[in-house]
Amino acid sequence: MTTAAQASERVLIAGKWVESQASDYFQSYNPGTCETLPEQYPISGWAEIDAVLDAAALAAEHLKASSPEMIAGFLEVYADLIDANAQALGEIAHAETALPLTPRLVAVELPRTSGQLRQAAAAARSGSWALPTIDTKANIRSCYEPIGPVCVFGPNNFPFAFNSVAGGDFAAAIAAGNPVIAKANTSHPGTTKKLAELALQAISESGLPSGTVQLVYRMSHADGSRLVADHRLGAVGYTGSRRAGLTLKSAADAVGKPIYLELSSVNPVVLLPGALQERGAALVDEFVTSVLMGTGQFCTNPGLVLLLKSEAADQFIAATREKFEAAQPGTLLSTSVQGSLTSAVQTLLAAGAELECGGAAIAGKCCVSNTLLTATAEKFLQDPAEFQTEAFGNASLIVLADDTSQLAAVLDQLEGNLTGCIYSATNGSDDENYATLAPRLARRVGRLLNDKMPTGVAVSPAMNHGGPFPATGHPGFTAVGIPASLLRFGKLTCYDSVRQDRLPLLLQDKNPTGKTWRHIDLSWTQSDVQ
Amino acid sequence: MTTAAQASERVLIAGKWVESQASDYFQSYNPGTCETLPEQYPISGWAEIDAVLDAAALAAEHLKASSPEMIAGFLEVYADLIDANAQALGEIAHAETALPLTPRLVAVELPRTSGQLRQAAAAARSGSWALPTIDTKANIRSCYEPIGPVCVFGPNNFPFAFNSVAGGDFAAAIAAGNPVIAKANTSHPGTTKKLAELALQAISESGLPSGTVQLVYRMSHADGSRLVADHRLGAVGYTGSRRAGLTLKSAADAVGKPIYLELSSVNPVVLLPGALQERGAALVDEFVTSVLMGTGQFCTNPGLVLLLKSEAADQFIAATREKFEAAQPGTLLSTSVQGSLTSAVQTLLAAGAELECGGAAIAGKCCVSNTLLTATAEKFLQDPAEFQTEAFGNASLIVLADDTSQLAAVLDQLEGNLTGCIYSATNGSDDENYATLAPRLARRVGRLLNDKMPTGVAVSPAMNHGGPFPATGHPGFTAVGIPASLLRFGKLTCYDSVRQDRLPLLLQDKNPTGKTWRHIDLSWTQSDVQ
Repeated sequence: MTTAAQASERVLIAGKWVESQASDYFQSYNPGTCETLPEQYPISGWAEIDAVLDAAALAAEHLKASSPEMIAGFLEVYADLIDANAQALGEIAHAETALPLTPRLVAVELPRTSGQLRQAAAAARSGSWALPTIDTKANIRSCYEPIGPVCVFGPNNFPFAFNSVAGGDFAAAIAAGNPVIAKANTSHPGTTKKLAELALQAISESGLPSGTVQLVYRMSHADGSRLVADHRLGAVGYTGSRRAGLTLKSAADAVGKPIYLELSSVNPVVLLPGALQERGAALVDEFVTSVLMGTGQFCTNPGLVLLLKSEAADQFIAATREKFEAAQPGTLLSTSVQGSLTSAVQTLLAAGAELECGGAAIAGKCCVSNTLLTATAEKFLQDPAEFQTEAFGNASLIVLADDTSQLAAVLDQLEGNLTGCIYSATNGSDDENYATLAPRLARRVGRLLNDKMPTGVAVSPAMNHGGPFPATGHPGFTAVGIPASLLRFGKLTCYDSVRQDRLPLLLQDKNPTGKTWRHIDLSWTQSDVQ
Repeated sequence: MTTAAQASERVLIAGKWVESQASDYFQSYNPGTCETLPEQYPISGWAEIDAVLDAAALAAEHLKASSPEMIAGFLEVYADLIDANAQALGEIAHAETALPLTPRLVAVELPRTSGQLRQAAAAARSGSWALPTIDTKANIRSCYEPIGPVCVFGPNNFPFAFNSVAGGDFAAAIAAGNPVIAKANTSHPGTTKKLAELALQAISESGLPSGTVQLVYRMSHADGSRLVADHRLGAVGYTGSRRAGLTLKSAADAVGKPIYLELSSVNPVVLLPGALQERGAALVDEFVTSVLMGTGQFCTNPGLVLLLKSEAADQFIAATREKFEAAQPGTLLSTSVQGSLTSAVQTLLAAGAELECGGAAIAGKCCVSNTLLTATAEKFLQDPAEFQTEAFGNASLIVLADDTSQLAAVLDQLEGNLTGCIYSATNGSDDENYATLAPRLARRVGRLLNDKMPTGVAVSPAMNHGGPFPATGHPGFTAVGIPASLLRFGKLTCYDSVRQDRLPLLLQDKNPTGKTWRHIDLSWTQSDVQ
């Protein structure tokens, strides 16, 4: 944090890039070169946040008069602009995050981001996301409607796909008809600024209210809590650290403001003996690739592996250690991530885990050596909370159980997680174990996988990127997948005996698009009300 | 509260009526005769709650092995038993609440309750409530599954339809596959006990796990907070006072436990000038009937009427006052409701409202004279929070605005409410006012009505009995209406590449009932996966 009087970047308020009134600033950092980047980003004070909230409230009103077609048009123009600026965006993001320019940033994450915006456009156009429901006999009709301005706090690990001004929460909030107040992640403000410039261009081309997208870079913790509790705000989407998330949750909860959080997850992976025996070497490859990809900085990184003690398990550990040691450690997103990772490793060691390899910061680099820890299930069960410390980065803990019932006991101690995986043999030899373990795992996770690592999160209508607390704040919502993710930013409104011409188009007798799915008298249909 | 050593009623734990270990007891009260009723009900200590939680967790496990048909069967047998015991139930409820035996208790509320249980049975049988969603290309499938044991705190005002062991939250929680821990409302423990006896009989006839339904009568506030935060519990449904609800919310929020609250609502009704001119006398009748029905003890009682100043408005007030004065005040549910009502009236008077009639407790009876207050919008706007004090019972406040923009300003100051009504002329003369006011009102309520009082809450698939905070805790859920109300008690679970025979029946290729609605590749269908 600096207080230099030099020119700082501007904030985006009510459709204009304006000089911030901040008195404090921060700079971002290139983790690849360990250099501080030159741009100064303002830490906005309350007066600025207040102006943003006013503009958002106004935009929310005006957005109601914007057709679904206009909202969809904005999302598509914006997606096209992102694609057209892929290289420039990739370079800024690479400088701020050290994530590989290709394929990761330009060829994978960026197309995912624009693709998500296009899916959101389709959802906005169809209106089916709003679950329009009609009881023709009683003339009662309901659907989800925009919840009001949504503040999005994006995480550090996806500069595009979860960016507060372009990612999944953004796309869902806008497609549901709400303006977005984006709070940049401190580790990639330049990427966020560039995206916001493209968003503003798309707003102007599509004719949406100018305050539909606003951007501030940072604020004090106190102002953050004040923001999420403000009466002008409809809801909050937050992805990031558990500690900061819980502080915001507490402020939002106190005033009954919906806040959707994605906080932390160790993503348990159970490798059953039959699978290890059948294809142990392949599982080592799959696991190592999944843990080290993106230097392990995924919400769904497999941070906890559960094995039954056996020779095959020992071989799995030895082969994994070998590959961890042979692989070049990737660069982490920031020195802060580096510090958290080594500190989490220390916590796990203090709890009784053993270090197989890695665990140390690498001098002069924003790296930690690839880290593998092991522990017995017996130790784990003595202090399950400590053993579930998330080591965010290129690290994983393998827990060895004596038998199935001990492994089941470990599962019973798990906190809520985003994902849980079970690998089993194809010949049926693991089926009994599966039957014992899968129900225990399923109830503690948002997504159960078979024979597949958790790191891929497809943007699918059936995806659940969510899970029980503390993975998220509510087990009924997904942050990824369209149209379901839009429901987080909808308010259910019922129209009881409201005259036909006063109903929202979605609820009038005539199907507004001819293709919108509506729940009429307990059947789903694309027809008009008969 | 008494500490008499005499035999007290038993609590229902793990399928058995057992002697409570309580050291404190309470008795209920007949508000019609002002007499304390003889039965002693225990105030359970933590050890008892702990046993209930253990049994509920076990029942939740066993319920997973129960077919939807068994759950539906239980709900239907229970509904039949309730119908068969209508007279006996009505008499107990009448003694505890003074609500009229007929038509209210036996002919209206009881059939609503058994009907709701039968609708819930149909929802459980079909499975469509769980929004099964299938992405065939990616082989990702998701649906809502049971969230875990649900604790239901029922309100005082509906001894059957919202009873913790028979009402809407109960039906929704069970139909979604969860056991229920019922916490009786202190004002009708005997009714709740009788219902729980029938529920236990239905459990035994239908073969569900014995801990599917449990009942305790009361506990300390500290134990209540501990209960809702317990890790064995899946979710909470609460209907009651704002103060107690917010205490429970705070305990549940701190551990990320979903809690669905229905807290308070003044249910604004706007009567536009054209409507008053066109059918003023009829509106007086409609309004008076709605306010005084059930002695005004409905969540959706019209407690706030908004009028534009005019001669017709003055006539409306005068005619309403006349009818209020002529009508016999109904009996309130308890001396506590009586005390809250007179105290709320004092709060409104202190804020600057004027008393048109009523406002006083009636000596020797559990009644308050029918109460009408008026205030100018100018006064209202000086202290909108005080003027929105809920006067639960046979009372309403009429606010007079100088013009449409002042009326709009009042709407802009409203807290979240369950309902909002607008009456307008049939000849179009109110249409301009409607266009200005309806969007403002709609965003602050869960249900917008035209030309209709809010007190009827149809059990319709399109109903929203919900609304923005502080009417409820989350604006996206409804407490009435099936199947939507079940979603509150579901946990979203995604199955990613899970083998076909390991999938829940709802997500296997074959449609489990041939009639279940599933969202397959973005289309809703009753077909099998092709």
